[in-house]
Amino acid sequence: MAHPITPLSPPLKDELDIVIPTIRNLDFLEMWRPFLQPYHLIIVQDGDPTKVINVPDGFDYELYNRNDVNRVLGPKASCISFKDSACRCFGFLVSKKKYIFTIDDDCFVAKDPSGKEINALAQHIQNLLTPSTPLFFNTLYDPYREGADFVRGYPFSLREGVSTAISHGLWLNIPDYDAPTQLVKPRERNTRYVDAVMTIPKGTLFPMCGMNLAFNRELIGPAMYFGLMGDGQPIGRYDDMWAGWCAKVICDHLNLGVKTGLPYIWHSKASNPFVNLKKEYKGIYWQEEIIPFFQSIVLSKECTTVQECYVELSKNVKEKLGSVDPYFQKLGDAMVTWIEAWEELNPPKEAAAAAEPKSVKKEEPSPKSK
Amino acid sequence: MAHPITPLSPPLKDELDIVIPTIRNLDFLEMWRPFLQPYHLIIVQDGDPTKVINVPDGFDYELYNRNDVNRVLGPKASCISFKDSACRCFGFLVSKKKYIFTIDDDCFVAKDPSGKEINALAQHIQNLLTPSTPLFFNTLYDPYREGADFVRGYPFSLREGVSTAISHGLWLNIPDYDAPTQLVKPRERNTRYVDAVMTIPKGTLFPMCGMNLAFNRELIGPAMYFGLMGDGQPIGRYDDMWAGWCAKVICDHLNLGVKTGLPYIWHSKASNPFVNLKKEYKGIYWQEEIIPFFQSIVLSKECTTVQECYVELSKNVKEKLGSVDPYFQKLGDAMVTWIEAWEELNPPKEAAAAAEPKSVKKEEPSPKSK
Repeated sequence: MAHPITPLSPPLKDELDIVIPTIRNLDFLEMWRPFLQPYHLIIVQDGDPTKVINVPDGFDYELYNRNDVNRVLGPKASCISFKDSACRCFGFLVSKKKYIFTIDDDCFVAKDPSGKEINALAQHIQNLLTPSTPLFFNTLYDPYREGADFVRGYPFSLREGVSTAISHGLWLNIPDYDAPTQLVKPRERNTRYVDAVMTIPKGTLFPMCGMNLAFNRELIGPAMYFGLMGDGQPIGRYDDMWAGWCAKVICDHLNLGVKTGLPYIWHSKASNPFVNLKKEYKGIYWQEEIIPFFQSIVLSKECTTVQECYVELSKNVKEKLGSVDPYFQKLGDAMVTWIEAWEELNPPKEAAAAAEPKSVKKEEPSPKSK
Repeated sequence: MAHPITPLSPPLKDELDIVIPTIRNLDFLEMWRPFLQPYHLIIVQDGDPTKVINVPDGFDYELYNRNDVNRVLGPKASCISFKDSACRCFGFLVSKKKYIFTIDDDCFVAKDPSGKEINALAQHIQNLLTPSTPLFFNTLYDPYREGADFVRGYPFSLREGVSTAISHGLWLNIPDYDAPTQLVKPRERNTRYVDAVMTIPKGTLFPMCGMNLAFNRELIGPAMYFGLMGDGQPIGRYDDMWAGWCAKVICDHLNLGVKTGLPYIWHSKASNPFVNLKKEYKGIYWQEEIIPFFQSIVLSKECTTVQECYVELSKNVKEKLGSVDPYFQKLGDAMVTWIEAWEELNPPKEAAAAAEPKSVKKEEPSPKSK
């Protein structure tokens, strides 16, 4: 058989956006060019909106700074964090694609043990397009991977798995440690390449890191809110954790899967542990109450969409975490605002079509773009 | 500094027994000699008791055949399976040690990716002597391993972990597949070395394979009953699965940990899939009811020992699985007999000491031994 002459189109090229929160020039994209250039980027510029962010030539992107966020969301912009990478979720909101890959600008291409450069996005796509197995543990890890399967004793009725909503990738070099661990182990580097992808079982929470993360926006997008962090807020560095706890509880309720493991990226530089400690310290003791809250929450059967689950969750947050700190009242309100913003920018397809002829066409977000 | 002249004693040398069920000469031990020779072996000879099993020179062992099982247990011997590797649990019963490593006689020493031979027992001991983390998932796998730790967002109150009861090792080469999968994928080999140990989260069941398994006998021994399989029974090849389901439910109740992953052994030869299908087929459909049973069982707070948990579990088995097949009535009874046998051979230390002066010293099991 003759080989095809034209290369295959990159997978999900027109169905996936790459979201990058940043405060600096995106030179890190040079290294990613072979893998990411075919895709569309949504850049969320944090901090000073007058600063000019350079994006390497040849990338297709739209860029939003704080002024854009305020213009697009109006009063609802209050739910988007400022001076914190939590602002990345604005990118999830304005995307129109089915899948999102989000990556930090200090993350580079890692190599596998054979020395080959890892196409992190391709592996995330592989994770998202194959099912998850949250209901029973498979000891040989992802049963859908080549050369693997379900082991003896795995119930046959569960082998179809469930749809995968989230793919959580890992980091070689600088591990994602909290400030106390950074302070205690300043020289620790992650050098262990674990060649596995696994489903996080139903009912089990995990610390979701936003550095190297992909998800199915149609399945779980509205739960991917990164909370109120940074400027004017009492904590930082819990944005991705918050999204992870909320999203996992909702995935469990809606029978969706969360995978972790491959792909690795190369995390180049540890952030300052003293600065981190200042951002984290409230979270460190608050989470001792937040985790039991999320472990015990039961969403009602009436909640059948992510939005419904998320609004019910926001009520629980206010009711049960409000006594921990007034911050959680504010956060609960912001969660509702986020859902309102989501529904405004992402109306159900039928509703959008029906509304079209009657209403004046709403102004589209008009970011700076290439 | 001068190096010590004498080598270090093998870890847990006097606190661990190696249990091997077999029907043939134990030539496979030759390859294991560097790692296993310092330890005591308990060999459970299955099948024809008149057959002579050769054990390579230099190993310290005791060997029990079916006649020995009958002599030691009397009428309670009915709970020990015949013509099935489930008979291995007799070795757990007669051991007096704190830890057990059990291995099949078709398992050989595997090599890690660098080509180094893997000391499976040493890795199991490492797994058992470090805590488990069943209450929250750590994305960098075993946080107690060198070069790893708890990641950002892992609650500090949970970082002490819990005691590890079970260490479940894996297999390179022939994977542990059921008969249908063996039939469909006759040539599949497991070549992927996943360099990880992880805790199976609380509330999650897993398929426990008895081929390469270690456990803390003091913590979980009485739950390591391999059921009624083989000769005269309607199923086989579900012995280790049964033990795994029971043990995991009890570990979750008693706040004990179960780890899986490293170490690998080299599994040399696939068993006959046609024979396996005959043994397995009832289990394949029964497990569709057994798994939901184990997933939903809640042991009462009054159960604070493994024995109490196990007896309560046996009642539930009879009550809730009895309708699936009369076999489960018999199995429930055998579970109670097993606990009675366990208590007879393993009296609580105080009780044993108190009884000593008054009673005639009970005859010890007197196996053939080196």
